[in-house]
Amino acid sequence: MRDFLPADIRKRNYVIGIIKEVYESYGFEPLETPAVENLETLMGKYGDEGNQLVFKILKRGEKLDLENATNESDLSDLALRYDLTVPLARVVANKKNELPKFFKRYQIQPVWRADRPAKGRFREFYQCDVDIIGSESMVVEAELCSAFAEVLKRLGFNRFSILLNHRELLFGALEVCGIPSDLHTTVLVSIDKQDKIGRNGVLDELREKGNISDESIQKVGTFLDAMYPISDVYSESVDATENEFNRRSSMNQALLRNLRTFLGDNPSGTIGLGALETILRLTENTPAREKMTVFPNLARGLSYYTGAILEIGLDAKDFTLSLGGGGRYDGLIGMFGKEQIPACGFSLGLERIIVVMDERGMFPPEIAESVPADVMVTIWSEETVGESLKLAAELRKGGLRVTVYPEADKLGKQIKYADSIRVPYVCVLGESELAEKKVTLKNMKTGEQETCARTAVADRIRTP
Amino acid sequence: MRDFLPADIRKRNYVIGIIKEVYESYGFEPLETPAVENLETLMGKYGDEGNQLVFKILKRGEKLDLENATNESDLSDLALRYDLTVPLARVVANKKNELPKFFKRYQIQPVWRADRPAKGRFREFYQCDVDIIGSESMVVEAELCSAFAEVLKRLGFNRFSILLNHRELLFGALEVCGIPSDLHTTVLVSIDKQDKIGRNGVLDELREKGNISDESIQKVGTFLDAMYPISDVYSESVDATENEFNRRSSMNQALLRNLRTFLGDNPSGTIGLGALETILRLTENTPAREKMTVFPNLARGLSYYTGAILEIGLDAKDFTLSLGGGGRYDGLIGMFGKEQIPACGFSLGLERIIVVMDERGMFPPEIAESVPADVMVTIWSEETVGESLKLAAELRKGGLRVTVYPEADKLGKQIKYADSIRVPYVCVLGESELAEKKVTLKNMKTGEQETCARTAVADRIRTP
Repeated sequence: MRDFLPADIRKRNYVIGIIKEVYESYGFEPLETPAVENLETLMGKYGDEGNQLVFKILKRGEKLDLENATNESDLSDLALRYDLTVPLARVVANKKNELPKFFKRYQIQPVWRADRPAKGRFREFYQCDVDIIGSESMVVEAELCSAFAEVLKRLGFNRFSILLNHRELLFGALEVCGIPSDLHTTVLVSIDKQDKIGRNGVLDELREKGNISDESIQKVGTFLDAMYPISDVYSESVDATENEFNRRSSMNQALLRNLRTFLGDNPSGTIGLGALETILRLTENTPAREKMTVFPNLARGLSYYTGAILEIGLDAKDFTLSLGGGGRYDGLIGMFGKEQIPACGFSLGLERIIVVMDERGMFPPEIAESVPADVMVTIWSEETVGESLKLAAELRKGGLRVTVYPEADKLGKQIKYADSIRVPYVCVLGESELAEKKVTLKNMKTGEQETCARTAVADRIRTP
Repeated sequence: MRDFLPADIRKRNYVIGIIKEVYESYGFEPLETPAVENLETLMGKYGDEGNQLVFKILKRGEKLDLENATNESDLSDLALRYDLTVPLARVVANKKNELPKFFKRYQIQPVWRADRPAKGRFREFYQCDVDIIGSESMVVEAELCSAFAEVLKRLGFNRFSILLNHRELLFGALEVCGIPSDLHTTVLVSIDKQDKIGRNGVLDELREKGNISDESIQKVGTFLDAMYPISDVYSESVDATENEFNRRSSMNQALLRNLRTFLGDNPSGTIGLGALETILRLTENTPAREKMTVFPNLARGLSYYTGAILEIGLDAKDFTLSLGGGGRYDGLIGMFGKEQIPACGFSLGLERIIVVMDERGMFPPEIAESVPADVMVTIWSEETVGESLKLAAELRKGGLRVTVYPEADKLGKQIKYADSIRVPYVCVLGESELAEKKVTLKNMKTGEQETCARTAVADRIRTP
């Protein structure tokens, strides 16, 4: 877990500021939940591996009975938030009457996972989630795609794809392949790897499992053949939005035709295909229009998805760098309450966005090179400290960010310090300046000095 | 622990926004530390009671050896942040070379304490800390008083006091009273209660302890007599800033005279008195000038303070409602590194500020009555959904916050929903409107409807 020094926080707040602004322009409202949840709320929602990665909190006082404890659940009753979706589902199930019928919320908070730390992977990291609760309509998927396309464009990302798939389509395809339902998950995990291990790699993996028939494996091959390689999917040009739309659109249509042939009249497949067509049609009038990319390999790990599944990939020649993902989960909220409430949402990976923006120099200069203050006021002597504080108060009233050197010290040392924190101006208030109600203003970039009337300093700094 | 719904978050963000703006105008920079610290970093910093209140995290995987565990420390290696001061001290001790010589930082993050929840007391709550590291100069105390006086004034608080005391003054007073140093803490705890139990209550409490001489108790009585009752300390008028300054100033001077007489030539007492005089003099030119109140009862619990101690009290007739406090702690950072680094800081209680502002109706209307969007776009039929999404995108480009009703539904139901979420305008885009490239705009407050050209809608909503 990391400490965030000022320069890190300014960058993070810049990204969060844009995310908030865009999400709020779509009518999303902020929600925040506590870092600590009841352990039982989290258990069983993230699969076996997830259960292991949840940070559990030790029981306190008399509740902790170490002598009679035989396993972790005797020792722990609370846990750290693992994602933002399960807490949302809990809130919606418990506070339905306090929330609007369609609850559009965003939530930007840290989550904790007891993962082995690695480059770019931390045990505390921020998630930015956006979800719409209460409607099965695919307007929801369209609005979500639109909102995060706008977020990425506003941040300065141009080459990215919104990869789109549907659980029913995958389910139908597996049925057509004759895969028994207890093997669906394991087969999907292999299919999801096609980018990395190739078509034949996927089929080899399925063969090694030993319990899938040759005929099924052959059909999976046919399903994989319906798709394009990842290198064809991604955008190569940045600005030609209409070309981009036309290119992706014709690929999407060709892919849907292939899939329709493959799926035939399989009912799940037909539902999935129909949903993808609707989402493509609805996003045509939104900022996501030229980014939508049907991508049937996409499976996504979490088991609670029930409909559309989505992922945002940063476009590179032969690989995808995921910036986030999500989908529809119409069953999850019902796990916390009596009522099934449809829901669809999306999570952006804040840390990864910041890393990429940093590497590519995408932060505006006032963020990348921000300084702690517009001006530093020096202190001439113990006797004149009060006057320096007074000048600082005047300059703050004039709208400036002002830091005061905290000690009466040699002037050279004070100037050196100002230089080390990169403030652009220094105000020197010595005895002669005080006598004349003036200030010596030093421009730290040019080294130039000038004497100003005290009342004119703020203006002079603002418009040099 | 609480969920924060949108209305709560808007209020909190309003307060945090002002705190940030003011602190940044003083040259403070943001710092954030992880929620989880090593257990050993926290243990021993908050006293015995504090140790009990730290949320401890269960060891994971092989590290958790339940069979051979005999106490809590065998089970836990990590813990949740208990305050923001100890993490700051850790950061400064470990990253000194990455930080400026004088590090002025603010930090606004939640902390966790396994306290019994009560009204207005939560197990997860936000602290807003502001600290200056690296200088022993009392310019630091003056700048801190100035900054939080400005925060409170900007939030709309007028009647408050900045209570000021000094550890050396208390230490000197206890020496003069002949209290042995191992009893200092217990006597200070009693003195701190004078507001609640009165002068004689304090002396009775000391007598009951049985190990303090009558002569000492009598001298403590003389020390207490040097002070004013709390009801005299607090401001009664709101606007008469200069009167307020004169009144408090003459009380402060009288009190300092009494204390000087009482303390005589005690070296600690002389240091403490001198420091208070300096801080009063330096704050005279700052926004804190009329709020500074010498208050020798103030002891504050945390043992790490070494110099000035401060508390902000909201003024009421006979009691103090503390909004935060702090002081100088020149010894804490040395506990984490080899070097002693002077430090002084202050913590504002965010939750309490919000509760009081809520009770008193101090939030501006746009915060208190904020709505999720400026306008809602309806959906006429499945066929026209795309057009509604297009209109929404146009209005967002026009700078509006726009929510779209997510389903093709009866118009009456859509309008009713718009009313329930209190959006001020609804755009109806029916077949005739689409044919004419117009929009019917309904003002939800007046109920009036008008037909606008599609390009004119955004302007019409912004300037009705």
